Amino acid sequence: MIDKTQYIYGIHAVLEALEACKDIDKIFLSKTLNDETTKEIFNRTRALRIPVQRVPVQKIDRITRRNHQGVLAMMAAVSYHRVEDLVPQLFDAGENPFLVILDGVTDVRNFGAVARTCECAGVSAIVIPDRESVSVNADAVKTSAGALNYLPVCREHNLVKAVKLLRDSGFKIVGTSDKQHLPYTDADYTGPVAIVLGAEDKGISPEIMKLCDTQVLIPEFGHINSLNVSVAGGIMIYEVVRQRLNDNQKVD
Amino acid sequence: MIDKTQYIYGIHAVLEALEACKDIDKIFLSKTLNDETTKEIFNRTRALRIPVQRVPVQKIDRITRRNHQGVLAMMAAVSYHRVEDLVPQLFDAGENPFLVILDGVTDVRNFGAVARTCECAGVSAIVIPDRESVSVNADAVKTSAGALNYLPVCREHNLVKAVKLLRDSGFKIVGTSDKQHLPYTDADYTGPVAIVLGAEDKGISPEIMKLCDTQVLIPEFGHINSLNVSVAGGIMIYEVVRQRLNDNQKVD
Repeated sequence: MIDKTQYIYGIHAVLEALEACKDIDKIFLSKTLNDETTKEIFNRTRALRIPVQRVPVQKIDRITRRNHQGVLAMMAAVSYHRVEDLVPQLFDAGENPFLVILDGVTDVRNFGAVARTCECAGVSAIVIPDRESVSVNADAVKTSAGALNYLPVCREHNLVKAVKLLRDSGFKIVGTSDKQHLPYTDADYTGPVAIVLGAEDKGISPEIMKLCDTQVLIPEFGHINSLNVSVAGGIMIYEVVRQRLNDNQKVD
Repeated sequence: MIDKTQYIYGIHAVLEALEACKDIDKIFLSKTLNDETTKEIFNRTRALRIPVQRVPVQKIDRITRRNHQGVLAMMAAVSYHRVEDLVPQLFDAGENPFLVILDGVTDVRNFGAVARTCECAGVSAIVIPDRESVSVNADAVKTSAGALNYLPVCREHNLVKAVKLLRDSGFKIVGTSDKQHLPYTDADYTGPVAIVLGAEDKGISPEIMKLCDTQVLIPEFGHINSLNVSVAGGIMIYEVVRQRLNDNQKVD
């Protein structure tokens, strides 16, 4: 059951929330709606880059039986950032930025565990796409043990474009793949780096994999050959930490 | 709801299973039972080192409404091993043994994720205590993505004694603690090693921590400072892998 504090329903309430730029995760719009209000919702959400999903009215009915008029906004538990805004801020603050990109991770427990690791390891921010991904709702914050209250999350409509922007900004993009031969410990992570973690089932999508400067392998020696994504993330993230700590010692 | 294939009920059925040395995880015995059968069950379980829990009869009623006569055996999904048998086998096979000890991990998803990492990383076996720990039931096998079908599990009545035996056999015992200063990457894991992972809430118990040859820290830089146990396990386990691969390259 979805908690009542996690959504806003009804045409006027949703339009007001959009007007106030509240942190909306996504909007469900009944397929049957097609009037001036619908157009206004699309205009406002486009400007704010909030995804709108056309759904059968029954989907909204399952969330609330109140008078929703075919419009329901799911609230985000955090304020989303954008890569194009955050990255200059990180460089301005003199950070050696370290991002983690989640390409299609949909399991909220895995997402929470990765966020928790990122916060512990001092990762600058997590990047997620706005579709085929978890939403940062109250459940995600809970499974992250509160990490999502501290860790910025960038949500991108076009993940390919965001990754290109990171490359252009001097980030090394590193993806893990079991088809590669380069052990993950042989890549260099001491400069600005973005680690890409793929979906639980399909791994990293081909378009994003193509943009990776380096594709690395976490060696496996068993029969099942499939690390959990949050564990693989922890291994990759702490390899970055290990190399950066070593690198700092050399400089001192 | 517990699957019917996961337990055996009734005095004779349970005694027969004990006679056949079937893989029993634990036995629930009604508190009100106190006769010759009870004594016989205790005698047989003591020899086989199977834990018996005295419970209110209602606890057994909740599992099955059949005529259980106050006796119910929960089946294990795997055959448990014992450290004293397995360790000589590992050395005889010419392995450089690598064990992971779970001191009181009770969450089945965390246990499954750790088992999955162990199997991928080529860990020789997992060691668990027979109380205040998960049981290796069908759920555990499922959350381990099948890893528990390949990875030996040693279940010990006395974990302190098992750890002492490992020390006497030449294992380095390494525990993680946030009260330590030695980074986990500064310890040496190239010889026979046992990594101890603690309970989700309490960490490693003081008696086991005292037996650790080395206590190490996974550095954390955030606000929440609490890695998930399966992620912390992944980081530790793959540091062992990294060092051993490096060490092998040097020898070659």
